[in-house]
Amino acid sequence: MMMVVVAYDVKTSDPQGARRLRRVAKQCLNYGQRAQNSVFECLIDETNFQKLKLELLAIIDEKQDSLRFYRLGNHYQGKIEVYGAKQTLALDEPLII
Amino acid sequence: MMMVVVAYDVKTSDPQGARRLRRVAKQCLNYGQRAQNSVFECLIDETNFQKLKLELLAIIDEKQDSLRFYRLGNHYQGKIEVYGAKQTLALDEPLII
Repeated sequence: MMMVVVAYDVKTSDPQGARRLRRVAKQCLNYGQRAQNSVFECLIDETNFQKLKLELLAIIDEKQDSLRFYRLGNHYQGKIEVYGAKQTLALDEPLII
Repeated sequence: MMMVVVAYDVKTSDPQGARRLRRVAKQCLNYGQRAQNSVFECLIDETNFQKLKLELLAIIDEKQDSLRFYRLGNHYQGKIEVYGAKQTLALDEPLII
């Protein structure tokens, strides 16, 4: 499994944009967790990454919206530094409740 | 030089937050280029990365704001995929005007 960071900017100046924004976030939630308002961290394999990418590309308006993927690879833990609010759960550690 | 992606969420519900947001963006501009509203791509060395980090940590309110750094390393070109609006300039290529 590899870590892919998904960052997007969706133009929400009209209702269609607001709808695209909701749909992009909803889609990303199927593959990972929200790290920030428009940044998701997805621990996925290559096949699911390609699927996610196609699904997001089908939602956004490429003339207005921006979509960026950052591949951190399998050994990603040392490549992410987090400060401040909204700590995310470590995806690959058991959740003890 | 290595590529570091800086992603931030600053709470702007009050004037101080709006000011922090402006100062964070301004600081990031000293080290790299804006990829999205709150995502910067910085091609920097370790020393400057540590400097940038300290400067940003001095600006944000860690109780309200979120700051994340994603280290893509030296060989980053194949790790970034960009779709849609706001293409950034390739930082390490000559700018021909």
